[in-house]
Parts: sequence; C-alpha cells; structure tokens
Amino acid sequence: MDSFHEELPKGDDTKKSFWQKKIGKIFCKKTLYSRLPFLEWLPKIRIASLVSDLIAGLSVGLTLVPQSLAYATIAGLPPQYGLYSSIMGGFMYAIFGGTTSMSVAPVSLLAITIYPVVTKFGPEVAVFLCFASGIIEMALGLFNLGFLLDFISPAVIDGFTSAAALIISSTQLKSLFGLSYKSEGFLNTLIQFFTHVKEYRMADTIMGVACLIFLFSMRALGRLKLPGDSAVTKIVSKLVWFLSIGRNAICVFLCAGIAVNTYDPLSEDTFNLIGNITSGLPSFSPPPLQTTNVTSGNKILEFWELATETGFLMIMVSLLAILEALAIAKSFSDGKKSVDASQEIIAIGASNIVGSFLSSFPVTGAFSRTAVNKASGVQTPISGVITSVMVILAAQFLTPYFFYIPKASLAAVIIGAVILMVEYHVILPMWRTKKSDLIPFGTTFFAGLFFGLDLGIIVGTVVHILIMSFAKARPTIEIKATHKEDGTIILVMPRESLVFPAADYFINLVKKAISKEEKVTTVIFDLAFVNRLDFATAKSLKCLSDDFGGSGAEVIAINVMPKILTVLQGIQSKKMNVANC
Amino acid sequence: MDSFHEELPKGDDTKKSFWQKKIGKIFCKKTLYSRLPFLEWLPKIRIASLVSDLIAGLSVGLTLVPQSLAYATIAGLPPQYGLYSSIMGGFMYAIFGGTTSMSVAPVSLLAITIYPVVTKFGPEVAVFLCFASGIIEMALGLFNLGFLLDFISPAVIDGFTSAAALIISSTQLKSLFGLSYKSEGFLNTLIQFFTHVKEYRMADTIMGVACLIFLFSMRALGRLKLPGDSAVTKIVSKLVWFLSIGRNAICVFLCAGIAVNTYDPLSEDTFNLIGNITSGLPSFSPPPLQTTNVTSGNKILEFWELATETGFLMIMVSLLAILEALAIAKSFSDGKKSVDASQEIIAIGASNIVGSFLSSFPVTGAFSRTAVNKASGVQTPISGVITSVMVILAAQFLTPYFFYIPKASLAAVIIGAVILMVEYHVILPMWRTKKSDLIPFGTTFFAGLFFGLDLGIIVGTVVHILIMSFAKARPTIEIKATHKEDGTIILVMPRESLVFPAADYFINLVKKAISKEEKVTTVIFDLAFVNRLDFATAKSLKCLSDDFGGSGAEVIAINVMPKILTVLQGIQSKKMNVANC
Repeated sequence: MDSFHEELPKGDDTKKSFWQKKIGKIFCKKTLYSRLPFLEWLPKIRIASLVSDLIAGLSVGLTLVPQSLAYATIAGLPPQYGLYSSIMGGFMYAIFGGTTSMSVAPVSLLAITIYPVVTKFGPEVAVFLCFASGIIEMALGLFNLGFLLDFISPAVIDGFTSAAALIISSTQLKSLFGLSYKSEGFLNTLIQFFTHVKEYRMADTIMGVACLIFLFSMRALGRLKLPGDSAVTKIVSKLVWFLSIGRNAICVFLCAGIAVNTYDPLSEDTFNLIGNITSGLPSFSPPPLQTTNVTSGNKILEFWELATETGFLMIMVSLLAILEALAIAKSFSDGKKSVDASQEIIAIGASNIVGSFLSSFPVTGAFSRTAVNKASGVQTPISGVITSVMVILAAQFLTPYFFYIPKASLAAVIIGAVILMVEYHVILPMWRTKKSDLIPFGTTFFAGLFFGLDLGIIVGTVVHILIMSFAKARPTIEIKATHKEDGTIILVMPRESLVFPAADYFINLVKKAISKEEKVTTVIFDLAFVNRLDFATAKSLKCLSDDFGGSGAEVIAINVMPKILTVLQGIQSKKMNVANC
Repeated sequence: MDSFHEELPKGDDTKKSFWQKKIGKIFCKKTLYSRLPFLEWLPKIRIASLVSDLIAGLSVGLTLVPQSLAYATIAGLPPQYGLYSSIMGGFMYAIFGGTTSMSVAPVSLLAITIYPVVTKFGPEVAVFLCFASGIIEMALGLFNLGFLLDFISPAVIDGFTSAAALIISSTQLKSLFGLSYKSEGFLNTLIQFFTHVKEYRMADTIMGVACLIFLFSMRALGRLKLPGDSAVTKIVSKLVWFLSIGRNAICVFLCAGIAVNTYDPLSEDTFNLIGNITSGLPSFSPPPLQTTNVTSGNKILEFWELATETGFLMIMVSLLAILEALAIAKSFSDGKKSVDASQEIIAIGASNIVGSFLSSFPVTGAFSRTAVNKASGVQTPISGVITSVMVILAAQFLTPYFFYIPKASLAAVIIGAVILMVEYHVILPMWRTKKSDLIPFGTTFFAGLFFGLDLGIIVGTVVHILIMSFAKARPTIEIKATHKEDGTIILVMPRESLVFPAADYFINLVKKAISKEEKVTTVIFDLAFVNRLDFATAKSLKCLSDDFGGSGAEVIAINVMPKILTVLQGIQSKKMNVANC
C-alpha cells in the first residue's frame, strides 16, 4: 500500500517513459523473485512441515467443503459450483501468495454480491465475473494501484459487512424453517418470512435450530482453556479443539446421516434435501465470454452486453476481494514482516483468472478458514494445496452422499458463519471518538440493507469523502488583534492547510476581523501550520494582501515552509513581505 | 457564505427544532429589513442621484438591447425572448439586491447552457427552467446554503468559462460569414464551418469582420487615458467614453442602417437579416409547467416529464447563475462592506421567478454591463429600473426596425463579448503556484468543450475534490530516530491532520521506520499539527501503540489538542501515555 511514491523518476532511469519503466519493472529479475514467493519456501520443506501442513490442510477442508456448498447457494448457484470454486485458490496462492496461512476460496460477501446477476442471467455470468474480476485484480496488483482502496474507509467496510451479514442471514431463514417462497431484497425477504412462518416444517425447524445451538456451543467450547497439564487434559483439549474446528463438517455429516435414515423415495421427504449434485469436475476450459444457455437466463448476452451488464459489479467484486484479502494478510502476517499488498492482490487475481477455467465464481481469502489454518499449525502454503486436493476428492467421490444433506443444516452453517460479522461493537467506540464517522457507517449499512450492497458501499464512500472535504471548507483559523498606540496588529493563524473550498471563507473571516478595528497597521499571516496551499487559497492570500497593503497596512507572512514559499512567489503579490522561510 | 456556523443552538432558542428556528429566522423583523435593502436607500434618493442613475441606466440599456437579442439566439430562442428576459431583473434587483451596480439580465453562459434542451423541446422549456431555477436559487438563499458553491473551485470555473466562450464563438462563425449549415457540439461545428467556409457570402463577411474590428477598437479606445485637462480634452474624453460604452448599440444601429438602404423586398437579401420580431410584450401569466405546443418540440411533455428531463439542468443553471452573481457582487461591492451572499442569491432567485411570468429565460448578473453601470456613475439600483423601462419601450416601439439587423453584426457583438472570457492567462500563474490545479482546469475545459459544458463542470469538480482527497491519503509525516545507550527513541510527527485514507499509510510508515532499529525504548507521537483525527486514524494510533507498547517500548503522545484528546480517550488504548494536553 506504500508504493505511492515509487514512480518518481530516479537516476539514469529518467530517460525512459513512465510506462516503459512500469513495464520494465514488472518483468525484471528481482521483481520476478519477489513475485514468486514459493521460490523461497519450497526448498525449506521437510517431512515435519509436510505433516503439519497435511493436518492443517485437512482441517481447513473439513470447514471448506460444507461452506463451499452453502456459499454457492447464497450466490444463487447449484451447490457443486462451490466445490469447483474451492480448488484453484489453494494452488495459485501457493505460487503467488505472500503469507503462510491464507485460505483462498468462496466467501459469503462475494457470493451475496453476485447473487442478483446470477439469478438474472444464470451461472455462466458468475464464471465470467470470476475471470473479469481476476483480470482487474491482476492489473491493480501489477501496477501497484492497491492504494486506491485507502479511500474505502473502515467505517464504510464495517457498515457494508454488517448489512451483508444481515442480508445473508435473512435469505437463510427460509431453509432453516423448511419454508418455500420467493423474495427479493432484505425487507421483502423479512416480510415473506413472517407471512409464511406459520407454514414451518417441524422436522426442518428442529434440525435447523439444533444445528445452530450445536455450532455456537462448539465455537464457544473451542475457546475454553482447560486447566491442568495432564495427559488426559491434553487429549480432551485436542478433542475439543477438533470438535470446534470441524464443527461445520460434523454438523452437516450428522444431519445427512439422520436424513439418510429417514429417507423414503416413495413419500415426501422428512427434510428438505439439497438433492442431486453433478459428480466430478468440469473440464478445464476457457471461461464463457458470452451466455450460451437460454434456459439459464432471460436471453443470450454477447460479450459486450455481458461486460456492460456486469461492468460495475466486476469492479465491486474486485475491490471487495482485495479488501478482504488485505485485511486477512495484515491480521495473519508473520510478526514484523510487512505485507506486500501488491503481491497479495496478484495472488487473488491469479486464483480468480485460473479458477474461472474450472467454472469457479469469484473467490478471495476467508477470515474464518485462515484462522483454522493458523490454529491447526500450518507451516507453508502446501496446506492450501492439501485442502484443494481434498475438495477434488470430495467432488469425485462424495457427491452421491451430498444428496442427503438437509438444507436446514447448510442454512445453520451459513448463519453460524456470518451472523458474527454484524459489527455492532464498532458503534460505541465511534460514538466516543468521532461521532461523524457514524454517518458513513450508517449510510453504508442502511443503503446496503435496503437498496443493495453495491449501492451502499458507493454511497458510503462518497459520503465519507464529502464529509472529509466539508471539514476542509471550514478550517480552524485563529485571529488575534493586539492594540498598540498607533493602531492594531492583526495576527492570522490558520491551524491547518488551506485548500479551495476554504478560499472565500478565509477571506470573509479575515475581512470581518479587520473591519472591526479602527486602524490596522500590520497584518501578520502565521503559516506555521499551513502544509498545503493551492492556487485558489493562494489567490485569497494575494487578494487580502493587496487589499490591506493597498490601504497602507504592512502585510507579513511568517513561518512559511519552503514549498509554500514557492506557491507564494508564484502569485507574485507585491504587497506581502515573506519572512522566516 | 460565512453563515455555516450560524445554525448552532444558542441561548433559550435551543428548545425550538432546527426547522422551526430556520423558518422563524426567515420571517423575523430584523431579517425582513436586511432582506429588503431598498428600505435603506429609497429615502435617500435625490434629483442629482436620479440624473446619474438615468444616464447609467440608459448606457446599460444601449449595451443590453442588442446583447439580449443576440443571447436569445445563443439559447436557440427567437430574438424577442432576449427582450422579455431583460425586464424583470432590473425591478427585482432594485427590491432585493444588496449592491448598487449589478445588472441582472440574460448572459451568454446561461444561454449556451440551456441551448440543448431548447432546441430539443422548444421555447417553453426555457421559461420553465427560468421559473424552476429561480425557485432553487430562492431556496438556497433563504436557507443560507450558498456555501455549497465553495466546492466548485476557481480552477473549474475558469475551465468552464473558457470552454463556454469557445463554444459560443464557434456557433457564431456561421452568421459572421453568412453561411448556413446545421451542427451540434464544438468539434462538429468547427468541421461544418471549415467544410462550408468556401460558400461564404461576401457582404456578410465584410460586415462581420468590420464589426469585430470596430468593437475591439472602440473597446481599446475606451481604455485610453487622454493627456491634459482642457475643456476640449474633456469633451473628447466623454465622446470616446460614449463610443466605447455604446459600441454594441452603435455597431448594430449602423449595420441596420446599411441593411435598410440595400434592402430589396423582391430580390434575395444582400445581408442575412434577423427578420420579423414579435412586437410588444407577452401577457403577464404563470410560466408553463408543461409543454403545450407540439410544433415547437418533438412531443408534449407533462410536468413530471419536464422536471425529469431538465432536473439536472435546473440545478446547473441555478449554480451557474449564483456563481456569476456572487463573483460580480464581490468585484463591485462598495469598499469595506462585505457581501451578503444569501441576499444576492435571493435577488437572482426573485428575478428568475417573476421573470418567468413574462416569458424570460434564466438570467443573472452580467459582468460587462455591471462594469458599464459602474463606469456610468450609477448611484442607486434605480438605474436598473431605467434600463428595464428602456427595454420595455424598445419591445413596444423598435421591433419593426429590428427586422433589418444583420445577423453578422449580432454575431460580432457576441464574439466581441465572449472571446475575452477565455482564461488563458490563469495557466501561467497556476503553473507557477500549484501545477496540480491545472488538472481540474484542463479536465473541465476539455470535457466541457468536447462532451458538454454541464458534464465538464461536474467532472472537473469531482476531479478537484478527489485530488484534494488524494493529498489527505499521503500526509507529510516526519520520523526521527535518536540513538541512546539503552535503545532508540523514535519521534513521529505528522505535519497535518490525519483522516481515513491515510490510516494504513501511517501504520506502514511508522512500522517500517521502527523495524530498521535494533531496540526501540520509546515511541513519541508529537501531535502538535494534528487538528483532526477520525476513527480510522485513531484506530491506527491505537494499533501502533498496542503493538509497540506490547513489545515493551514506552508510547507517549505529546502536544495533544483538547479535541484530539477526546478522540484518543475514546479509543481507550491502555499502552499510550498522553502528555502536554
């Protein structure tokens, strides 16, 4: 994120053009090594680290397989797309990733973001979006443009995540209670739910609620520290830990077991099951650049129509993927080693581009599974490769059994994963520190909840940038008048930088202060705190100097920083004396 | 413009709601007096001042009548609309206006802005826009919202004005050379002109070029100062001054005279003439709230369609009208008296609202005619009333003679007025002071020229706000390391306020500096220059403090302003000691 100043011409490089240098930099040897971090850790692999990675990889896989099926349904896709999307991330991150423990696969935020276009145009659009967002991510990474994300503030991200968590949870209420209705948008989903809730199916409801209780209990259990240090304690600890880590898989497995035993192909099912899942993997082939299957969407879209329909979403998906990956990389980076943001972005880009050849929908790093990976003792990104292999095996051999997974258990897995993302706990600290930050938070949250998540993040970001700009329009300016025998000395001290929205305000404030005095002999502008001065505010200073200088007062600027001096010389005010440069 | 802080609750007013106070304030007696400035100057009128105002009013009228006919054609309207639009401004400004010399009537910038919708939907839309923009202006004025205009930077305004001047001039080339073609947009107009230039009509071309030479010569002549102080010199000076002030009227009058003498109703005209103009004034009636005349547009538009089609333009026209009026009020305000921006905005709003009852298109203050008014010795806004009466008389009695005005002479009047608005002279000072200000200037100019003036001003403003925000993403931060026996002391001193786009950058910079040291004993954050700190950057500070504090270093914040202290207390970092509050 700190590569903003790298592009300044240095030394003998100056003869090359900006783009020559940019492109030269991408392909130079040193960059290539730092761009392929596996060259560093691959030679260090030992049997011991492989065993650790095997355990970690399998632990992540146990979480990933049920979650991937569930997240595919959030995106409006058939469940097997979840498996397809969980494969390439492990391989690509092993090649390009800069941290050890990141797990790249489907996440709930991206799934809910693409849901509207998938329901409108069919699954091919999800794969197209995966490819397109991968290209955008790769470009942002290669050209060090990750700093653009600095403009999406934490307040906006918190608001977005909270709204997404509520929306995702609301969509799962249907499956949790065995209901069936169609709905669109958060409010309509809630209304539909409460309209139909009396039609609940007893078996699904009991299973769903039991799963939720199980999942939250196991999660809480995993956080307990058992006292003592005996061998028994150690074994119990390991068991509890495994129950906690593998709770999603255990939950789904147990529920599927119950469903198998109560299944009767001749009568109506006891539970709503996810049903047939295509077995095996799709062939490795280029992503669709147009929709071909009329039955899956309303009509066939050519490439340009597809790009136009999804252009905004491409950018949104790319930004969200990068935001989540960078947040994880920062949280789980190894000690003092600073995160190379561009490298992480490239790794996510590669996962999506290559993943789209295997019918993946957009993926990125997942917080919960990265935490599982770390907790399971991951040593190298080989762990991710193990997870991917596990998903491939699941797709090949387990799909017949997936038929029996009750929808209610998957809904519980989803709600258990996302409900904790509602960031209600940031509200109090924001209130205590900077109340105005609650505005972008609230705007993003409510706009996201009621008018669409993508709109929420856009409106929130614009609002936050405007709030920041409004502050610049009314800078703190101290004005002191000292009365002497022959007249008054006015000291004007802006307490911060002056930029254009403040230009008129600054003039009015100073003029008002001076008009109160009978005779002003000297006007002193103390610019100690002025770190930036643009053309408009420099003209304001010139205008004030010429006015007062013209009417006989002495105008002095003091504590002028060198770069501000250049600006003051540029406006060429003859009435202003500049001192203390 | 400095009423931003007025809305803070004061004293026993606090029990009333925000809007109660707002509305109460609008109708209180003190406000009413300051809102009707004529109550102050009307009793002071004397015969001498009336004579001065008569001369000034007639001088302005001599410029206004030909310009108003010309500006109506810029807007795509029949010439008589220019006369209709030149009447109410004088009366309304006399009642509500805060300065003495402002002349409110059609201006070229507003005319070219409404041109696209007028050609599309007919003249009624221009009157509707006049009414609607008047309402918006009145609202902005009454609620003291003029400060919003601070966000349109001078660089953007200069870019817009320059582009508008070139576009207006380009549209007049056709009439200047007696050509006839249809064109749309700046580039297309130039292409059409050069395609058809060989079909030029000799008589029109000679007249047009001669008019241009005459107008610029007279303008230059008016700026000459004659030496000496004799009676002859005085008379010559007055004559020259009159030639300069009245050059537009003289030019058009002479050309019309020539046209009358060469006119032959049986053969083709020697010159392209503006032709029949409806005589007299339209009846005073409410503005059209829908288009009724099918022949004048493509179809009938109901009120809501009309409002939707022109919604963006209403806002644009209002903002431009206010910008121009305020710029003039500031330039021509009387000495030390500060301009009441809200009052000026109300005066413009009233002119447009009432004007629309007389089929006016949007009007505002005009720089050139205000200058003529001032130079002619205006004493009170009665001068504007005189001008209006003169326009009414012209509309009643002179329209038969307007038939003979050659189009080439009007084109010359327009080009003579607008070509000097190309602000090429701001480029050098901008380059010397703040090169980055050339970006919003250039963006507005080129986007305005090639893609539409309204788009230009929007894009330019967004770009300028973004540039300002980018600066906030990379604040100047000084980091000094002092090596002692037992370790290093790191001093971190941000040289300006910290807001969210800088949050990650700040963390990375400090971490990088500290990772270079072997052992850090103390980290000091000197916040002397930090005037604002938001939630995101406060969290960065907390994160840094917890990191370093956790690893054994002492973390101290010094020179903390009281309001920053509140923020630091809000984040509740236990590792940070705050001193020097």
